[in-house]
Amino acid sequence: MAHQHHPSHDGGGLIDVHTHVVPQSFPAYVGRHVNAPWPSMAPAHACHQHVMVSGSVYRTVSHQCWDCVVRQTDMDQRRTGMQVLSPMPELLSYWLAPEDGRVLCSYLNEVIAEMVRRESSRFVGLAAVPLQDVDMAIEVLDHAVHQLGLAGVEIAGNVNGAVIGDPRFLPFFEAAAEWGAAVFVHPLRPSGLDRVVGPAALEQVLAFPGETGLAAASMITGGTLSQLPGLRIAYSHGGGSLAMLLPRLQHAWNVLPQVRDRLPGDPMQAARRMFYDNLVYDSDTIHHLIRVFGDEQVMVGTDYPFSIMDNDPAGRLEGLGLSADLVERLRSGNARRWLNLGVVA
Amino acid sequence: MAHQHHPSHDGGGLIDVHTHVVPQSFPAYVGRHVNAPWPSMAPAHACHQHVMVSGSVYRTVSHQCWDCVVRQTDMDQRRTGMQVLSPMPELLSYWLAPEDGRVLCSYLNEVIAEMVRRESSRFVGLAAVPLQDVDMAIEVLDHAVHQLGLAGVEIAGNVNGAVIGDPRFLPFFEAAAEWGAAVFVHPLRPSGLDRVVGPAALEQVLAFPGETGLAAASMITGGTLSQLPGLRIAYSHGGGSLAMLLPRLQHAWNVLPQVRDRLPGDPMQAARRMFYDNLVYDSDTIHHLIRVFGDEQVMVGTDYPFSIMDNDPAGRLEGLGLSADLVERLRSGNARRWLNLGVVA
Repeated sequence: MAHQHHPSHDGGGLIDVHTHVVPQSFPAYVGRHVNAPWPSMAPAHACHQHVMVSGSVYRTVSHQCWDCVVRQTDMDQRRTGMQVLSPMPELLSYWLAPEDGRVLCSYLNEVIAEMVRRESSRFVGLAAVPLQDVDMAIEVLDHAVHQLGLAGVEIAGNVNGAVIGDPRFLPFFEAAAEWGAAVFVHPLRPSGLDRVVGPAALEQVLAFPGETGLAAASMITGGTLSQLPGLRIAYSHGGGSLAMLLPRLQHAWNVLPQVRDRLPGDPMQAARRMFYDNLVYDSDTIHHLIRVFGDEQVMVGTDYPFSIMDNDPAGRLEGLGLSADLVERLRSGNARRWLNLGVVA
Repeated sequence: MAHQHHPSHDGGGLIDVHTHVVPQSFPAYVGRHVNAPWPSMAPAHACHQHVMVSGSVYRTVSHQCWDCVVRQTDMDQRRTGMQVLSPMPELLSYWLAPEDGRVLCSYLNEVIAEMVRRESSRFVGLAAVPLQDVDMAIEVLDHAVHQLGLAGVEIAGNVNGAVIGDPRFLPFFEAAAEWGAAVFVHPLRPSGLDRVVGPAALEQVLAFPGETGLAAASMITGGTLSQLPGLRIAYSHGGGSLAMLLPRLQHAWNVLPQVRDRLPGDPMQAARRMFYDNLVYDSDTIHHLIRVFGDEQVMVGTDYPFSIMDNDPAGRLEGLGLSADLVERLRSGNARRWLNLGVVA
């Protein structure tokens, strides 16, 4: 009863796997590259700051991005027990020189680990790693998981144009699988931007899902997933376009020898081993995700605290008309399996 | 009774809106550009020919591509009343110099018109136009519709990288709308190819849906669709990724002023004005298309006669468990509206 305003304290509250962090400030750049696109903060209106990159405002963000107290108030209001904290994807900064990327990722990981330490019953943290250098990324992941206690890592669907299913990233995924680090895939600098007509905001709205879908497909068709049965990997935005790609891939695998002979196994079964948030803003589409990927693979994600976020994740779940058992899986059970948090006592 | 093996002769047979034609031969190139990627045919094994472009085999195709008698036998076997004939998309050849493109498109249109003339109860034809030059494309469409009697036009989702919702193509769509020409959008040279890992065949399998989704979205966000209420436009492969993009676009339109203020209207309503084939190889996904786009907008498409085709379109429809009325709309009614074929007597 004492915890009735803090639904997470029973250990079974809603887990929001898709929330982002921006540090309140960044260290000054001390690398050796002229004009490195290193982020910094500039004051904005009350409770807000501008994230500056290369001399212009990348995004104006609020104190929700870094303030644990504000976040917890919002979580209580949204009936969210636990947030999985990941960096604002642009901060992954794969375009920095590797040694600069290592410094920035290490800083992000310290900030996120500190938020988790302050309120470990409400926050789980995901690291950033400099995937522009795979060996260095493995070292940073090692530190983040084993020294900082982070639960996993956020990565983009591509690294400077190389999709994550490319064999060059296999050693990184081997390390993540071996260390039990959950992987969260978020779109960043997507393909298809030149196919978008309209205001700039549409680039993230329209190009992100296709990028995520192709990234997820590449983990299947490139063989990484089949080689690492222990890998726990999740995709943002419901896997993007993957739900529409998968039956076509399955059909091609069924009927085209040149596809079947080169793929490690049944694509649909492979897809149903991966996890997906439900950030698709529509009940029918969430139902479809459950049909396609299975009711043990879909989790709650909101994009908190950004303007496109889904504001009422608990209400969204309740509105699906699912059985109590299935709601519970989506609310927390599937996320606990992805994050390896263990069963609620 | 005399027509029981020719189900189309009652006028209500299944209409397959997504079938392709390759001519049995191509005229020799007589243009003035050195090394123009002009197609030609080379002999292959029995009943097959190689389509050659720039000195290599683009695809090996069978006589089903050009032989009306073979096609009709296949149609009877598949319980297909009518095929909508469109060029193999690679032949649209937007990368040719415009005057060469005009010659090739005009030839394709003559071939398709001749197939329709030979069996007008079984075939409806779509033209090719050289969209690399919008004025020229309008002239070729004029001839195809008004002289050759074709029902509409096949276009790609992009023309040398420019997506169809780009304002530069508005005059072409104005002409199509004014002349009542149905437009069929097919992916070609898609974005995202660099995100695909695995055998080359996967490029069409995995990159095509995203290309089509972004093309369809561009017609909404660029305003072409809202400016042309009479335009009848359809998308291949179930609209590709559009079904996954649309709820996200709708949410952005609902909550982001910078999107809402720049778009002409409700994206979901706009999407439900367009048509989509059901070539997604999966019953659950077809059901989802019907939920998203409406039961008056989904039609049958198979990709006949290519190796990835859906082999049993009638069985596919029957397996959906829909009402007889709805099956009839998908089987032919919606295609008749898209093609403006009129009501069956």
